[in-house]
Amino acid sequence: MSRPVITLTSDFGQGVFVGVMKGVILNICPQARLIDLTHDLPAQAVRAGALTLLQAAPFFPQGTVHLAVVDPGVGTSRRAICMHSRGSCFVGPDNGLFSLIMQQDPDAAAYEIINPDFRLEPVSSTFHGRDVFAPAAAHLAAGARPGMLGPALPDPIMLTWPRPKVANDELCGQVLLADRFGNLACNIIQKELRVFLQDRPARVRLGDLVIKGISRTYGQAAPGEPVALVNSWGRLELALNQGNLCAHLGINPQNAYGMGIKIGLIR
Amino acid sequence: MSRPVITLTSDFGQGVFVGVMKGVILNICPQARLIDLTHDLPAQAVRAGALTLLQAAPFFPQGTVHLAVVDPGVGTSRRAICMHSRGSCFVGPDNGLFSLIMQQDPDAAAYEIINPDFRLEPVSSTFHGRDVFAPAAAHLAAGARPGMLGPALPDPIMLTWPRPKVANDELCGQVLLADRFGNLACNIIQKELRVFLQDRPARVRLGDLVIKGISRTYGQAAPGEPVALVNSWGRLELALNQGNLCAHLGINPQNAYGMGIKIGLIR
Amino acid sequence: MSRPVITLTSDFGQGVFVGVMKGVILNICPQARLIDLTHDLPAQAVRAGALTLLQAAPFFPQGTVHLAVVDPGVGTSRRAICMHSRGSCFVGPDNGLFSLIMQQDPDAAAYEIINPDFRLEPVSSTFHGRDVFAPAAAHLAAGARPGMLGPALPDPIMLTWPRPKVANDELCGQVLLADRFGNLACNIIQKELRVFLQDRPARVRLGDLVIKGISRTYGQAAPGEPVALVNSWGRLELALNQGNLCAHLGINPQNAYGMGIKIGLIR
Repeated sequence: MSRPVITLTSDFGQGVFVGVMKGVILNICPQARLIDLTHDLPAQAVRAGALTLLQAAPFFPQGTVHLAVVDPGVGTSRRAICMHSRGSCFVGPDNGLFSLIMQQDPDAAAYEIINPDFRLEPVSSTFHGRDVFAPAAAHLAAGARPGMLGPALPDPIMLTWPRPKVANDELCGQVLLADRFGNLACNIIQKELRVFLQDRPARVRLGDLVIKGISRTYGQAAPGEPVALVNSWGRLELALNQGNLCAHLGINPQNAYGMGIKIGLIR
Repeated sequence: MSRPVITLTSDFGQGVFVGVMKGVILNICPQARLIDLTHDLPAQAVRAGALTLLQAAPFFPQGTVHLAVVDPGVGTSRRAICMHSRGSCFVGPDNGLFSLIMQQDPDAAAYEIINPDFRLEPVSSTFHGRDVFAPAAAHLAAGARPGMLGPALPDPIMLTWPRPKVANDELCGQVLLADRFGNLACNIIQKELRVFLQDRPARVRLGDLVIKGISRTYGQAAPGEPVALVNSWGRLELALNQGNLCAHLGINPQNAYGMGIKIGLIR
Repeated sequence: MSRPVITLTSDFGQGVFVGVMKGVILNICPQARLIDLTHDLPAQAVRAGALTLLQAAPFFPQGTVHLAVVDPGVGTSRRAICMHSRGSCFVGPDNGLFSLIMQQDPDAAAYEIINPDFRLEPVSSTFHGRDVFAPAAAHLAAGARPGMLGPALPDPIMLTWPRPKVANDELCGQVLLADRFGNLACNIIQKELRVFLQDRPARVRLGDLVIKGISRTYGQAAPGEPVALVNSWGRLELALNQGNLCAHLGINPQNAYGMGIKIGLIR
């Protein structure tokens, strides 16, 4: 039988917080495999965390426990959630982190983590990653069922996202995320793009920048030139071939969603 | 039987040094579990490393080997140390990195690492993490006893820290560390705070900034407002709710201790 | 029998890309041990990646699979390569990443990765790390032979490097890499240095900076003073004892090679 996998996602950066959560897990479930998804989410960026998990979780084996901590409300009355979907579990604060995955699975089930047997006592008021979420994830990996952590949670917090809109023959979207290469991914997905374009030629607009055509690869643009393509997660993305579009446009990649940057697809 | 755990802590950042130490370990102890504590310590910051280990090590299973390399004296006459405390081992340069843990354990024992059988030959003069400490840690994880590495070390280097002092009804402390959220932790611990306040109301002072009361959570302050609380390691901490106090005050988080920032607790 | 080791090297930084590759690997080879070498290579810096692998790979157990993705040509006609050398495998884009290792092993063999059974379908045009290289590495770790991935690749891309030259009693080299401490390593290796100096005293020159003598350790210089030594990879390196030479000289460490910085060794 293969060993249980726990992924870890947070905005904790490179400090010691993540290592300590791993120590807590190994005390409870010594056989767990620990895989970092990312700890470089912008501080307290629940939306960036939710999008990251939506894109990454499907690439992990069924049975994986996904532990995620982006938790601006730690110590307040916000609840702790265990969400079960398609054979995998998601553990973290109930602030919408897992809501994009829940929206795609009508059979998903949520539980509130309240059972004191699955916590580290005393629970601090500022580091539930260590005291609540890591122990819960470790117990799940060691064989506990989600329902053992607490009662069903009927009303988990759900995030809503801006939807692309059609106006004047333009599909108007919005930037969701920037990656470390300075590429900008938006809320227009491949299917919407196809339905809108119907094989017609396209231009993509971001402020004064206009890009002709949807390329298949970054390399179809000359080095340093902008390019639009459908990225590896199925989203419309803008990039600079062998360059950094964020730096080129003066956009802070840590806050790309919060800036409300419009992307227009013109047919 | 569960597999031996080795944690790794350093100021090596995200480069290849840590990966190479892991390769060396796997050659000697293929079954070791390798857990990164942090490699983002400020360069050559022995004190920050010592505090990090003091706070994090207790969360790991007994029997863990903690390998730590913050080593400004590499290649000089500074000694290599293996320190044994409460069933766990600590391996690194003898510069005080493990001295805070030693001070808390009267039964701790230290050994000088000199046995050439537990090194990678030839030993370089600049990367003992690879050539001395990683092999020693791997042999310990594979079953070697600390005394096999070399003779007892009767006088390991010990760090001293500034202690909080009472003056004019104020408990005067000092900032020890900043975390990635820009929160500032100081040398006043929960017990000292309680003894000083005796349930009286408190104010916390950092330069011109004065915070009323000790909160239980960050969220008790309005977003963007400063807050003082006892953090998850039991230390008095100053923060900005949903903000970055270091950025707000123009403090470089990489050097928070070195700046000698005073924290005053007023009753 | 010990579990197969896969190392991961990339310019992906701290985002989610690396975690997703690990998920893909665990689906194919659940028993693989996953070790990060570094993901902090400068974006699209194939040369820095090649040098990193040359230095680090020898420290890993025979049989290790080294997965490396620095891939400015992703989605273009650039080929995917599996290179076998001294019992270990190297998987990534065919752009020279493994060519420094190949040059040192006359028995090295290269294969083009084209077998669709060892890919994740559909293959995206922008993330072959996930869709091509991670699956190939996982299958190799699970027991596939390199030749099963595709036919022999007779003409892999090879990198060439500037060689040190002697002129006017000076050995003229060039900076190859900067590390996180701001130390500068150059293309002059220990053997060349010995042959050139023949035990005579030396000076090392970088622009206006002149350093007398080759030290054995950083600590032989006073704190804050420059020092030249042979580093732990056998290369001539310039550093500032307990300081940062890059910062001191205004050199961007992310681009140290690209700046063509000359190092002169004068006897």
